[in-house]
Amino acid sequence: MSKTIKIDPELVEHYIHEFAQFGAFGETGVWRTVYTPEWSAAANQYATWCEEAGLVVHRDAVGNVWGRLQGQKDGKTIATGSHIDSVTPGGRYDGVLGALGGLIALRALSEQYGPPVRTLETLALCEEESSRFAANFWGSRAIVGDAYPEVTEKISDADSITLAQAMRDCGLDPSRCHEARRSDLDTFIELHIEQGPVLEQAGLPVAVVTGISGIRGVRVELAGDQNHAGAFPMDLRRDPMAGFAEIASGVIDIAQRWGRPAVTTIGRVDVEPNMQTVIPGRVSFSIDARHPDPLVCQKLLASQDELIREVAERRGLEVNWETYSEHAPCLSDPGLVEDLSEAARSQGIPFMEMASGAAHDTQQIAGIAKVAMLFIRSRDGRSHTPEEFSSTEDMVAGIRVLAAGLHRLAY
Amino acid sequence: MSKTIKIDPELVEHYIHEFAQFGAFGETGVWRTVYTPEWSAAANQYATWCEEAGLVVHRDAVGNVWGRLQGQKDGKTIATGSHIDSVTPGGRYDGVLGALGGLIALRALSEQYGPPVRTLETLALCEEESSRFAANFWGSRAIVGDAYPEVTEKISDADSITLAQAMRDCGLDPSRCHEARRSDLDTFIELHIEQGPVLEQAGLPVAVVTGISGIRGVRVELAGDQNHAGAFPMDLRRDPMAGFAEIASGVIDIAQRWGRPAVTTIGRVDVEPNMQTVIPGRVSFSIDARHPDPLVCQKLLASQDELIREVAERRGLEVNWETYSEHAPCLSDPGLVEDLSEAARSQGIPFMEMASGAAHDTQQIAGIAKVAMLFIRSRDGRSHTPEEFSSTEDMVAGIRVLAAGLHRLAY
Repeated sequence: MSKTIKIDPELVEHYIHEFAQFGAFGETGVWRTVYTPEWSAAANQYATWCEEAGLVVHRDAVGNVWGRLQGQKDGKTIATGSHIDSVTPGGRYDGVLGALGGLIALRALSEQYGPPVRTLETLALCEEESSRFAANFWGSRAIVGDAYPEVTEKISDADSITLAQAMRDCGLDPSRCHEARRSDLDTFIELHIEQGPVLEQAGLPVAVVTGISGIRGVRVELAGDQNHAGAFPMDLRRDPMAGFAEIASGVIDIAQRWGRPAVTTIGRVDVEPNMQTVIPGRVSFSIDARHPDPLVCQKLLASQDELIREVAERRGLEVNWETYSEHAPCLSDPGLVEDLSEAARSQGIPFMEMASGAAHDTQQIAGIAKVAMLFIRSRDGRSHTPEEFSSTEDMVAGIRVLAAGLHRLAY
Repeated sequence: MSKTIKIDPELVEHYIHEFAQFGAFGETGVWRTVYTPEWSAAANQYATWCEEAGLVVHRDAVGNVWGRLQGQKDGKTIATGSHIDSVTPGGRYDGVLGALGGLIALRALSEQYGPPVRTLETLALCEEESSRFAANFWGSRAIVGDAYPEVTEKISDADSITLAQAMRDCGLDPSRCHEARRSDLDTFIELHIEQGPVLEQAGLPVAVVTGISGIRGVRVELAGDQNHAGAFPMDLRRDPMAGFAEIASGVIDIAQRWGRPAVTTIGRVDVEPNMQTVIPGRVSFSIDARHPDPLVCQKLLASQDELIREVAERRGLEVNWETYSEHAPCLSDPGLVEDLSEAARSQGIPFMEMASGAAHDTQQIAGIAKVAMLFIRSRDGRSHTPEEFSSTEDMVAGIRVLAAGLHRLAY
């Protein structure tokens, strides 16, 4: 295919704008958590637009909405999409752009090229942000068979409503959530806003994502001797704050020296007793470290562990740590990265390759299908805020690359 | 005087034990804040014991209790004492030891040497810990003329009772608190437990205090860009946590390298938003720095300020800081230090000189009199806790040095 795929900018703007009314928060914000009335309305709208585009709509057992463009040949599906829930409050683009972008791409392909050889599907995933329930990736986990009925009774929102009850309130039967499992996906491509400033800095509208960083979150606790800030000489202290400061400087420095795409963040610190005139007895802190290359990621974590042990031992501090989050790196399928790169070239859209430092549904679906992602430039690299913004021009560019990629795979 | 001054260990133990019943907290703790019923009972007991020792009792306008051993000659008074309020909860020794030690010393001197040439007074200060009202050093500030009636209406405790009301509840008239001012003090010596482990480490029972450290407490706020922990490359971050860790390591290292008696403590840290997966937008923290030498203290603070500015500028962080606490160093009177040292030698009690890193009433009274302090060894350097402990032997040693010092000055 050398022809230009046409994506209507007005349709993109119209869909983004209309969808943002479901859970509208302030002028540009969205507050839409899974299984709420505003979420149901959004899911219904998605289904309606799929039908208008001539797609066959299917809602699965957890409320993911699928729109199917039947292929002329049997075989596994090529799917695209993203989530339609938001953080609290979030903006109009995170997640939604991928769900609507998939729908718009399939509509454009169907209108401009007729029925595909292989089946295409677009997907609005029900939940990704865990902004209502501690059920991160609930929609994509259901698709890969990792959503269990018994769990739905154990997780509650801030108002003590269980996940099971919330599902029932939306007409879903939690005992059937395993039925959402799909075994016929060949490929999944997720279009998403970049949640950082890399594309903006590079002056490019689109990135082909080569992988999603592995993430390890650990909570480290250093314990020493709580004492009077004035009367204890420095040489007799066991000060966990001194140990913390050294470790924090160290792990941040390591990531800085290793350079992109290594990142390390100390986001949370809790001090006991947290009083100005008292040497703390205990300092607890989080270390969030990420790298998309499995081997390098292991080395990064090992260097942190070594530093923590060395500092604690030298300063005579007790140290305990627990891992609260662990995701292996998820490499994109190399063939798919090449297909998407070729698609961008065919449309004359400049792009770069990059890794994703943020987690996405894609890494769940990687368990059952070939995956890759496309990123769209975000203003100031902002996301998870009502201020997030991507230009219509950039969104159109991203959807054109997506559509051209799907065309390469399905026609 | 070459004779040994006798201090009865049983009397010391008895007084300490009985006094600990006023506001007893658990087995060895004390919870006794100013102008409470337990504080009033303790003040009454102090007055009673002064009378039993043949001292003339005077309660001043803020509730300090004075016991006077009249000298044969007119002239200014030589006073000793400390505070009888506690932290919440505190132990049996902090403050109380100096108030009771002064009383026991005057009683011993009177019994063993008769009336002095110069007048001696022992003093139970009403308040030092600001554990009920933000009225730190209320007792000693009244004595130097720094306690004002109008303030008493503006300060309230956790139950919204004003300082004025609390005084009235104890039969004191807050409008008269300026009457507590003394202009006839020549010398003030405060006996106190050491609040650190220096004497224990040195294997000595007593220290003569050469000065009280100057203290500066600053609250520093570093502001950067709050962003996603995964999607923002290290090279594009303005991370206040990275700046904080570097500054904290730096100021602690400086004090450590300078060695005793320099100390620096980061006791309090507040992070916004304090979430594991978010690069903080703001980190605020306290720096408490102390040194007893005025010139060295200035250098210590200047080196900290330089570091804060340099790190903030290099990392592109906004920085603001405010001083929440500032006390100039208080040097002991050199002649008085020599008198107390000679007193210790005369009693055959091994001692060392040291500076106090903690603040004391003495630094207030230094405004109107020659001052010095004596420290008694504390087990494990603990204070401000029910676990604080000094042995009877050490207390007796300290009171003997105090009594011998008062004898040198007043007989």
